[in-house]
Amino acid sequence: MPRDSREIVAFQGERGAFSQEAVRRLLGDRVKVLPCQRFEEVFQRLKSGPASAAVIPIENTLAGSVHENYDHLLQFDFRIVGETSVRIVHNLIAPPGVRFRDIRRAFSHPVALNQCLDFFARHPQVEKVPFYDTAGSVKMVMEERLRDAAGIGSALAADIYGATILRKSIEDDRQNFTRFFLLRRSGWKAKSRPRATKGWKTSVVFTTRNVPGSLFRALSAFALRDLNLAKIESRPLRGKPWEYLFYLDFIGHVEEERSRNALGHLAELADFLRVLGCYPRGD
Amino acid sequence: MPRDSREIVAFQGERGAFSQEAVRRLLGDRVKVLPCQRFEEVFQRLKSGPASAAVIPIENTLAGSVHENYDHLLQFDFRIVGETSVRIVHNLIAPPGVRFRDIRRAFSHPVALNQCLDFFARHPQVEKVPFYDTAGSVKMVMEERLRDAAGIGSALAADIYGATILRKSIEDDRQNFTRFFLLRRSGWKAKSRPRATKGWKTSVVFTTRNVPGSLFRALSAFALRDLNLAKIESRPLRGKPWEYLFYLDFIGHVEEERSRNALGHLAELADFLRVLGCYPRGD
Repeated sequence: MPRDSREIVAFQGERGAFSQEAVRRLLGDRVKVLPCQRFEEVFQRLKSGPASAAVIPIENTLAGSVHENYDHLLQFDFRIVGETSVRIVHNLIAPPGVRFRDIRRAFSHPVALNQCLDFFARHPQVEKVPFYDTAGSVKMVMEERLRDAAGIGSALAADIYGATILRKSIEDDRQNFTRFFLLRRSGWKAKSRPRATKGWKTSVVFTTRNVPGSLFRALSAFALRDLNLAKIESRPLRGKPWEYLFYLDFIGHVEEERSRNALGHLAELADFLRVLGCYPRGD
Repeated sequence: MPRDSREIVAFQGERGAFSQEAVRRLLGDRVKVLPCQRFEEVFQRLKSGPASAAVIPIENTLAGSVHENYDHLLQFDFRIVGETSVRIVHNLIAPPGVRFRDIRRAFSHPVALNQCLDFFARHPQVEKVPFYDTAGSVKMVMEERLRDAAGIGSALAADIYGATILRKSIEDDRQNFTRFFLLRRSGWKAKSRPRATKGWKTSVVFTTRNVPGSLFRALSAFALRDLNLAKIESRPLRGKPWEYLFYLDFIGHVEEERSRNALGHLAELADFLRVLGCYPRGD
């Protein structure tokens, strides 16, 4: 058997998770995926191998930021080299031959179940059953060949496990998107500069000195140079109660002159500043 | 039996939860506590009775903000009338007569277990067992009269359930504080103006127009008037992917002239603005 020379990409969840859909969008189909149980394991697999890339969710338009991953970004010191967003479409998925009228239980991650409340209200015969993972619920109903149960997960999960989609897009809110980051180790160099048809985005993390007006002055480094912020997120600073780290994304390439000036200005004001990555803007 | 005329205060968790310690600090001992399973239930009990006050955690110095409660604050439209912070001290607690050397399992909330990793590393004979609640773990080991197990929770929980503290303060990090809000319904009027020995704090929530520099301009309403920010938190805006609500706390009384001017200025810039409350600064 020829040696598998495909790149290995770590993500959290079972095969067929929405993160795997993000892997496909970011890197195409010619990579080998490495499903991990926990986010920390994803980061560890990128740090120590065998993965050479990782894809992590960073925010969802309904649930908000994935704060744990912000903390890991600081701790592990990888580079963000890409982003994408995936619309979260929940499907009711069962083993082949099972009909919708047979379904009495629907398994999925609690967050997914709570995003399909209209469906459950319309179909009171179907009981919500919390499970550890969306794609994992599809895997389980297939492995157990359950005849009265379905999983709720992605179309990719139905495809991977050979299951049937009984009802498409049963989520309450179509404005349900998750944004993902593609991470690589710090030394990594792209073979060619990636295309950035929508421009570039840069992510940084910093702490301000604990003095009045410090966040305002930090933001002035960007505003005074007409650099637009896409997002700001605060996290507690360990060991300094009631002080914060700020994660900030701005529109621009880190090597543009005004970005360099803004970051130089921010460095004057900040106790700590690190560029987490510069990457083509996603969809 | 005389009718119980004590005020009823809702909080999340079992009796003896850290939230109950916050109730005691905010309202003293002469109130009746109403433990609730979920945060949403706490808000519902304040909305529809029987509670006339509620105490909720809003941020922890290690874990960060309790984002769910920010969302409830927006939805329910109560008033924040007080804040306090409680140092989170985890204790190993067992039924009377059980000795430390008997302990083979320690039950507690997963977050608490993860905050005592040094203890578990020093005592490998003690297994971590995830449980739904800190104080609930103490209640359970008492009810079941377990002889080889302990719960991990507050000193108040040990007191309430008549259990024994075998090891005090086993948390890894002493800089572990949780900040709590005291909430009342909007129409509520204090009988007398509360004392504010450390001054006042005001909490607001707003959305900015989706134009460049809008957050910077929003913060300028405070910075240009030398009003200090204590905290800013962003949450996704439902139905508008990649737009955000901002929750902001500043130091000052809402009726001071410069606060009124700042809020007037912010109202010019914001699509939406609501004052969540004005309250004496906590410890």
